[in-house]
Amino acid sequence: MTIHVDMDEVLADTYRAHKDIYNEEFNAMLTEEQCMGSEVWHKVPEAHQDSVRNHARRRGFFRNLKPIADSIQVLNELAKKYEVYIASAAMQFPNSLEEKSDWLDEHFPFIPWQNRILCGHKHILKGDVLIDDRSYNLTQFDGRPLLFTSPHNIHTTGIERVNSWKEVAEKLL
Amino acid sequence: MTIHVDMDEVLADTYRAHKDIYNEEFNAMLTEEQCMGSEVWHKVPEAHQDSVRNHARRRGFFRNLKPIADSIQVLNELAKKYEVYIASAAMQFPNSLEEKSDWLDEHFPFIPWQNRILCGHKHILKGDVLIDDRSYNLTQFDGRPLLFTSPHNIHTTGIERVNSWKEVAEKLL
Repeated sequence: MTIHVDMDEVLADTYRAHKDIYNEEFNAMLTEEQCMGSEVWHKVPEAHQDSVRNHARRRGFFRNLKPIADSIQVLNELAKKYEVYIASAAMQFPNSLEEKSDWLDEHFPFIPWQNRILCGHKHILKGDVLIDDRSYNLTQFDGRPLLFTSPHNIHTTGIERVNSWKEVAEKLL
Repeated sequence: MTIHVDMDEVLADTYRAHKDIYNEEFNAMLTEEQCMGSEVWHKVPEAHQDSVRNHARRRGFFRNLKPIADSIQVLNELAKKYEVYIASAAMQFPNSLEEKSDWLDEHFPFIPWQNRILCGHKHILKGDVLIDDRSYNLTQFDGRPLLFTSPHNIHTTGIERVNSWKEVAEKLL
């Protein structure tokens, strides 16, 4: 079985980083609860939105993300049993390419470079399972799509959902 | 129709760069004709092989490659007609990721980031045509494989071959 796993908001906590950087730089107190159902940049005053939207273009942004809870342990178990690929849309931000590679070397060294994919469209992926937080990636996938819960997607329906890596483990291990 | 196109030795002349760098640094006169049927590093004295094998790890190596003859024009025509993706195994050399992205911005700006894929194994690609110089990438591909001629693969048989971008145009345009 071949499993493709998205990176941002599935393995790496991009959402939290957006919120934390915004709070620190604008001396704000935005909480994840306040953001539920939205992107972080939708929840800040209009004058601050460009700043938040450009976090991903900063040097170091992707290198310093925190892994999502239990992702390392569960992916390690999955990789022992199945063919596991990490598939990320990093081509959008060329400065992120090397940072993402370094981040994976640190947190997911058991996924070798041969099993790391950077791409834009995910409908070019052939595989049995795709775990992703974006419905537009999942609806075009031929295999079994699993929507990984992120604050921005809590209102999405019609796709099999996993709320945590513990739930991924229950379904696939 | 979806067409995947490899980068090194199909769009970018990696082979020539290996030969030219070697000749300059070792004051040698290796020709492409002498290399036919082999990798460049197989054709240099054993004491020099590591040097050639490590060219790809140098900063700037991938940024300064020459495009293969007619690749820009033909790919541009293909991209107007079909869904064209560039698929490269860049994850092997993390230093190459940003260089490859910059190189594509310069020579193939008509292929947007969404249609650029960096991956290890190419059997995860879903598509109708794969143009590649490595038989191990082509034999695992579900669609129509086209072996792009490179000095190292001239003895490979059993796969439909294209000797130049003009031949690609004749077959696909």
